[in-house]
Amino acid sequence: MAALEPSEKPISTIVIIIAMQTEALPLIKKFQLSETHDSLFPKGVPWIRYHGIYKDLHINLVWPGKDLSFGVDSVGTISASLVTYASIQALKPDLIINAGTSGGFKAKGACIGDVFLASDVAFHDRRIPIPVFDQYGIGARKIFSTPNILKELNLKEGKLSTGDSLDMSPHDEVSIVANNATLKDMEGAAVAYVADLLSVPAILVKAVTDIVDGDKPTAEEFLKNLVAVTAALDVAVTQVVDFVSGKCLSEL
Amino acid sequence: MAALEPSEKPISTIVIIIAMQTEALPLIKKFQLSETHDSLFPKGVPWIRYHGIYKDLHINLVWPGKDLSFGVDSVGTISASLVTYASIQALKPDLIINAGTSGGFKAKGACIGDVFLASDVAFHDRRIPIPVFDQYGIGARKIFSTPNILKELNLKEGKLSTGDSLDMSPHDEVSIVANNATLKDMEGAAVAYVADLLSVPAILVKAVTDIVDGDKPTAEEFLKNLVAVTAALDVAVTQVVDFVSGKCLSEL
Repeated sequence: MAALEPSEKPISTIVIIIAMQTEALPLIKKFQLSETHDSLFPKGVPWIRYHGIYKDLHINLVWPGKDLSFGVDSVGTISASLVTYASIQALKPDLIINAGTSGGFKAKGACIGDVFLASDVAFHDRRIPIPVFDQYGIGARKIFSTPNILKELNLKEGKLSTGDSLDMSPHDEVSIVANNATLKDMEGAAVAYVADLLSVPAILVKAVTDIVDGDKPTAEEFLKNLVAVTAALDVAVTQVVDFVSGKCLSEL
Repeated sequence: MAALEPSEKPISTIVIIIAMQTEALPLIKKFQLSETHDSLFPKGVPWIRYHGIYKDLHINLVWPGKDLSFGVDSVGTISASLVTYASIQALKPDLIINAGTSGGFKAKGACIGDVFLASDVAFHDRRIPIPVFDQYGIGARKIFSTPNILKELNLKEGKLSTGDSLDMSPHDEVSIVANNATLKDMEGAAVAYVADLLSVPAILVKAVTDIVDGDKPTAEEFLKNLVAVTAALDVAVTQVVDFVSGKCLSEL
């Protein structure tokens, strides 16, 4: 009997990357995950892995933890890249799920509480005006396609633009429009970049906490909606995991 | 006999992180380093390690390589973070040296070809206008102090501000001024962040290729001066390594 292609083996191990503790806690409870105190990550880093078995899947939820100097969630592309890299190296997952909140553009059909799967990612704050370097900076890439999840769960689909700022400067806006983005976050393209580098498929589940092209200040709207939208995000992530259970990559 | 403190043991292993091949090649030649084909880094990544023994020091020069999609040097904070992390994990160096070119502010005394050691780093493109998160985004940190290198080699000293763009938007400029920076680069604060996370001292050697507050377009000035300034950078890095040879951290 011929060996199965990786895409035809049942998915066994998942790593869920979540930047904020508020976003992570309901899922840790839902999947009954336990904090691990193994030596998966090097001494000194604040990264925390929660692990458990849920519907025959090894679920690892990795949260970059609270910054050691400032005590807030280690958001943004650097921490997201590092934990994605370290988690893939240590756990060899079949699938990465990056779940998080994001800004959305109402002009592209996004509403508060909507949950999207990203179809494409790019960066909007890496401007390098030298030929080819400019394209590297934008770093546009397609996300692993999951048409059955999209259809079955009735999620929206849109392009995601990533940058390290919560606000949006005029320069960011020009790039986000050029990226044709419906969503704006602070980690997605970084997680997708590292997952691609190490040839692990990644799904990006993003729930809209604030309307970027609306009239409310982003930080205020983000904080006001964070808890409620996180509930919608966690429902969607649970549905994704339920759908993944027992399937192989080619069935997603 | 009591064990020596880490800062009192002779420095044995150095990792030099360099983002661009043009910057790396003269040093590879100077230190007579060889490209290694070991399995230090995971399969598929473009990162390249050059290794050799120079004046009793294990010198590892790590270059993130050419981006697999775009074929240009993997510049910027994400690649710099990843290679710093992976190199520290694999090589347990006593010291990291991040060497590279940078923009300089003439208002702060920087001239084309000047070589600086960074005294402090911060980010200028991570605006998160939520209390405490704002400070996390800026991520200001002091760099490992090397007063004897500074004095012996007669280098300049200044604050470095890091961001993922080669150009400078008005929002970046406000942050760079707030960071009180003399230098602007695309990797330094990321290397320092990861080195700090893993408790390895890092030195940042930066040579000025372009005057940010001058009248020439950055990309043009950068490309025009890259090769000549790289020569000055490589002289300085060689002098730093010569100085480090046979010494312990507390003597730097």
